[in-house]
Amino acid sequence: MSDEHDHGSDDGDSEADGESHHEPERETFSHDPVGHAEVRAGMTVGELADQYGNAGVGAADLHEAVDVTESMFDDDVTVFFGLAGAMVPTGMRRIVADLIREGHIDVLVTTGANLTHDAIEAIGGKHHHGEVHAEGKTEREHDETLRDEGVDRIYNVYLPQEFFADFESHLREEVFPVLEEECEEEGAVSIQRLTEELGRANAAVNERDDVDEGPGIAAAAYENDVPIYCPAVQDSVLGLQAWMYSQTGAFTLDALADMTPLTDIAFHAEEAGAFVVGGGVPKNFTLQTMLVAPDAYDYAVQLTMDPKQTGGLSGATLDEARSWGKLEKDADNVSVYADATITFPLVVAAALDRLEN
Amino acid sequence: MSDEHDHGSDDGDSEADGESHHEPERETFSHDPVGHAEVRAGMTVGELADQYGNAGVGAADLHEAVDVTESMFDDDVTVFFGLAGAMVPTGMRRIVADLIREGHIDVLVTTGANLTHDAIEAIGGKHHHGEVHAEGKTEREHDETLRDEGVDRIYNVYLPQEFFADFESHLREEVFPVLEEECEEEGAVSIQRLTEELGRANAAVNERDDVDEGPGIAAAAYENDVPIYCPAVQDSVLGLQAWMYSQTGAFTLDALADMTPLTDIAFHAEEAGAFVVGGGVPKNFTLQTMLVAPDAYDYAVQLTMDPKQTGGLSGATLDEARSWGKLEKDADNVSVYADATITFPLVVAAALDRLEN
Amino acid sequence: MSDEHDHGSDDGDSEADGESHHEPERETFSHDPVGHAEVRAGMTVGELADQYGNAGVGAADLHEAVDVTESMFDDDVTVFFGLAGAMVPTGMRRIVADLIREGHIDVLVTTGANLTHDAIEAIGGKHHHGEVHAEGKTEREHDETLRDEGVDRIYNVYLPQEFFADFESHLREEVFPVLEEECEEEGAVSIQRLTEELGRANAAVNERDDVDEGPGIAAAAYENDVPIYCPAVQDSVLGLQAWMYSQTGAFTLDALADMTPLTDIAFHAEEAGAFVVGGGVPKNFTLQTMLVAPDAYDYAVQLTMDPKQTGGLSGATLDEARSWGKLEKDADNVSVYADATITFPLVVAAALDRLEN
Amino acid sequence: MSDEHDHGSDDGDSEADGESHHEPERETFSHDPVGHAEVRAGMTVGELADQYGNAGVGAADLHEAVDVTESMFDDDVTVFFGLAGAMVPTGMRRIVADLIREGHIDVLVTTGANLTHDAIEAIGGKHHHGEVHAEGKTEREHDETLRDEGVDRIYNVYLPQEFFADFESHLREEVFPVLEEECEEEGAVSIQRLTEELGRANAAVNERDDVDEGPGIAAAAYENDVPIYCPAVQDSVLGLQAWMYSQTGAFTLDALADMTPLTDIAFHAEEAGAFVVGGGVPKNFTLQTMLVAPDAYDYAVQLTMDPKQTGGLSGATLDEARSWGKLEKDADNVSVYADATITFPLVVAAALDRLEN
Repeated sequence: MSDEHDHGSDDGDSEADGESHHEPERETFSHDPVGHAEVRAGMTVGELADQYGNAGVGAADLHEAVDVTESMFDDDVTVFFGLAGAMVPTGMRRIVADLIREGHIDVLVTTGANLTHDAIEAIGGKHHHGEVHAEGKTEREHDETLRDEGVDRIYNVYLPQEFFADFESHLREEVFPVLEEECEEEGAVSIQRLTEELGRANAAVNERDDVDEGPGIAAAAYENDVPIYCPAVQDSVLGLQAWMYSQTGAFTLDALADMTPLTDIAFHAEEAGAFVVGGGVPKNFTLQTMLVAPDAYDYAVQLTMDPKQTGGLSGATLDEARSWGKLEKDADNVSVYADATITFPLVVAAALDRLEN
Repeated sequence: MSDEHDHGSDDGDSEADGESHHEPERETFSHDPVGHAEVRAGMTVGELADQYGNAGVGAADLHEAVDVTESMFDDDVTVFFGLAGAMVPTGMRRIVADLIREGHIDVLVTTGANLTHDAIEAIGGKHHHGEVHAEGKTEREHDETLRDEGVDRIYNVYLPQEFFADFESHLREEVFPVLEEECEEEGAVSIQRLTEELGRANAAVNERDDVDEGPGIAAAAYENDVPIYCPAVQDSVLGLQAWMYSQTGAFTLDALADMTPLTDIAFHAEEAGAFVVGGGVPKNFTLQTMLVAPDAYDYAVQLTMDPKQTGGLSGATLDEARSWGKLEKDADNVSVYADATITFPLVVAAALDRLEN
Repeated sequence: MSDEHDHGSDDGDSEADGESHHEPERETFSHDPVGHAEVRAGMTVGELADQYGNAGVGAADLHEAVDVTESMFDDDVTVFFGLAGAMVPTGMRRIVADLIREGHIDVLVTTGANLTHDAIEAIGGKHHHGEVHAEGKTEREHDETLRDEGVDRIYNVYLPQEFFADFESHLREEVFPVLEEECEEEGAVSIQRLTEELGRANAAVNERDDVDEGPGIAAAAYENDVPIYCPAVQDSVLGLQAWMYSQTGAFTLDALADMTPLTDIAFHAEEAGAFVVGGGVPKNFTLQTMLVAPDAYDYAVQLTMDPKQTGGLSGATLDEARSWGKLEKDADNVSVYADATITFPLVVAAALDRLEN
Repeated sequence: MSDEHDHGSDDGDSEADGESHHEPERETFSHDPVGHAEVRAGMTVGELADQYGNAGVGAADLHEAVDVTESMFDDDVTVFFGLAGAMVPTGMRRIVADLIREGHIDVLVTTGANLTHDAIEAIGGKHHHGEVHAEGKTEREHDETLRDEGVDRIYNVYLPQEFFADFESHLREEVFPVLEEECEEEGAVSIQRLTEELGRANAAVNERDDVDEGPGIAAAAYENDVPIYCPAVQDSVLGLQAWMYSQTGAFTLDALADMTPLTDIAFHAEEAGAFVVGGGVPKNFTLQTMLVAPDAYDYAVQLTMDPKQTGGLSGATLDEARSWGKLEKDADNVSVYADATITFPLVVAAALDRLEN
């Protein structure tokens, strides 16, 4: 057998007597034993996050994410929050709105899709749990039936299409006219102005119509002076609606105008944190914001399911972002590679728990 | 614009007055609105799991997994637990041992690697947190240094190799001799007999040497008459050690003997549940057990990160297992596709919480 | 043993005599035996694709993708090509440019990042193979060194930052001034106008400076009247440059203007095909284009590594798009879930092979 | 704007004149420009692999895999081939058999499932292409129907269950009796002895019954004196059948016996290469083989879809294996993270192409 390494020596005597052996000098690691996670009934999410700290791989990453998030939620840190993917249709809307209201988010970068679904719920529409395919139908036939019945499917969440008609009315009555007037006077409005007015309208209609579901993310942002940036707004039903309305009047959107105030915020941030859920444009745009600031992010948390070896930006590690100057050299950053609908509520709950204690 | 679907009609009047519209008849879904997860400081894991039930995709799967696990932990259900992957080195050891002691696991199917690491910790060895690569070294150079320094790396967990020497002594002194005698009398022993004796020895040494870390999984199984099956034991350091010892005496292992008692347990189970963490042999062997029983699993939970379109068994859906007769037609089954070091503690904590309330 | 299914009957006699048994009636599948892929030295890519057709899972999907692509490249089909991810830095630039020149792409939707990198190569910059971390450095330290040395890393591809200075000059001298004049006269220009002028300038400079590398994608599009749409242009260095330039003059971009001509093309397409590499905005925007057309895509191919159960759009199945009316009910569509830098050249090579024979 | 990095300087003059700039000294990378893949109709797979060498990420990995495989197929290298996953049902059987016959595989480590399916095809059974769910059925209902109709599903490949009855007869008539006799004389037989006899019987029946499909992997191994190791044989229908037969006679399997000859081969190999398709036991057992040899693998290629951050062995990087002494410090190793049904035929075809030229 090999002398190379000690997976078992022929002479077992030296260990036979149970003596502890002195640990050889090693540069490869410091004493940091892996503990074991322990769970019990009634434990809090904060306690679970602590237990994760005893474990390895994903659990350890999540534990670290809670630490970094706790630091980020400190008052002196300007938090840039990137929200991608179908986070609103999948039930994450409330958590984001609450974070905004509690002052933990200073800037939001998201997709037109999330704003669309957020608005639909604000004005009374509802997404429904469904199946990827219903009883008695294949996935393909089921999608064909959905199409015939006017129901859109987002994985296993349904959205009846009449809600899109409501959304259109909402925009044409409550949102676009004011913006069109501004366009008549000043030229194109910024996309942020659109999201701001959308938030105002969502809040107003939600209250006026006494809608069960809360007013949501855009409303919370409006009411708390948190700007929402949506660089790819055309890539959504909101964008389609804006385009259709723009055909018949002065209303249009300026694609670049938002980058000035956003850069200002980044420039003036004492400390900056990036919290990114999912990948895509919200992630890249959030990180890119620091390219033209003298400082970069001091804190960064990324919750994503995208594997990192694909070369695409969404799975790119935050360390890679360091090469671009998007992260400070000594930034606290961590990525958790798991389904964000599981990790996001968990990280937030645990971080809030820490802040309270 | 298309008449095809209602992503916005030119005539907004009918919706303008805010009337609720009657919902058309739809077979594609029933009223089951997606709620939104809400989190707060101090919430329990059980409450978080409930909140997941409001959400979609992974969160909804996890919520369902908690439900099914709660059902499985009922006394009348015989639980077959499959544990793959590096669950012991990554901090999951305690949870599994506790589940065994609490009577929630009736049969354990696992890998030689997990038994190896479990034993090492029982007798006083420790895994350590480390980096995938240490300061000042590339990943490759770092692994070369680890090799030179006698440290094995499992992703970002380290294991100094002298612990393998301890493990060998442990086996040669406390475990193999008794088995060798049995072999001299009765021929080869079963693999389960090996795991049983290993558990007995782990418990004994752990107590005798007053080791800080608990006696672990195999010890708990031994003390609670829970058989451990390990079909691929040769594929591990435990298996290597067994082989080396077998060179010099009568000791050897029977590859098939365990399938008889395992089949008996399956045959006589009133209700059966399969809880599978990871994939690989433990998963397949656990599911396969039902192939020769008249009934199949009534409950099944799978926690895995393996994507399901690869064709490999690890990512195979539990529904696919239904075609093989491994699941009852009306089995409650769910898969959660996310890092198991995150989901496993979470699901167990929430299920225990439910059982208590 | 179970009577449930025939994984082995005790009575082997009936099969023992080697008689073929009549196949019972089954609705679950038709006779379509899986063959086996066979490979040999010197085989063409087209032949390899044929062999994939004998196999299952990913290989079968890829085979089907070749079929659909072949159909799409037919002259009567208007092809909308979505290109996401870091496809230019990872060596896919030439293939896309060639497809445009050969008339196989009618509309291109892509990211600002791809246009940025495409331009940089057109004017003489080069990406370099590198390591995720260089000898003697950790991944993090390496990224810090890259930062100090002015080199950006995209996974394992490097881009020295002086090329971004060249890119800026290129834009400020060759591209923006013309557009600024148009803005002075007509108000904001469309993003497509920007990409068009960029392509013209890339072609001109590439020739004038006798650059080794070809003029690239935007140049090919310009020379072949293929419009390039880039809804999220602000999310890129190109967008940053546009913004900086817009600070000092009349130049700005209209976020919505492109949706009119794009919708026209979709409206008038006899048959339409969507070929999407990666996910993100290019994918969604390409599929969304059909929402306001009476017809939808007849053909769709998606090459992506995004797993489909995450709920995010990038991994959404094309079948899901059917529920939204983005695909015709009888559309030929297929997704290949694998690294696109591997599958894209392969699918294109095989499809071109088919077209020739 | 930041002085930190050169994403654009306000002063464009220095680059405006088109001068080439001297490249600063950099340790981070050497001149190794990324080219661009180019494809054309009629190109060979070898040419495609060369083109991948110009590209990045997965394509570059695949190119390197071809290089390493070419080296491995050299006569002086002893190749240990690990085959996991459902590679036989998904059409990869022929390629492996051919590699064995051409002398490119010296040792095979695989799963009982692959041997089962390989034998079934050898004796006349066929797998069929199917759908994950058939027309008019949900995935779950479809699997229930499959179960009722006696058809097993492996993702989208079907296997009628009567073939399992044939397989049982085959084993009981052609394979087990000889082994039972050996057991009566010498005690348990090794698992390799079982696979050897299975291969002999597959070849014999395949010829005798004039079966269309080739005799397959085990037959090729038998005819070329290539030992097949299957440490987890119990975890398969083959294992179930062996167990059932063992109930009624002297036949049984020795779980450890194979490790002696396998270690001998490893010990005496001048140069050793590991080619691993998929993960699981075949991968680990193949790599583990070198733990007790003075040398380790000089070459290693891994084709897998398992992401590497899960902590499980299947996705573990080959670099990690270096820390365990399973790879030589200067081993040529590469992993390609993509669907193996796509990459495996491709890599083999290209490597064979290289060998011929």
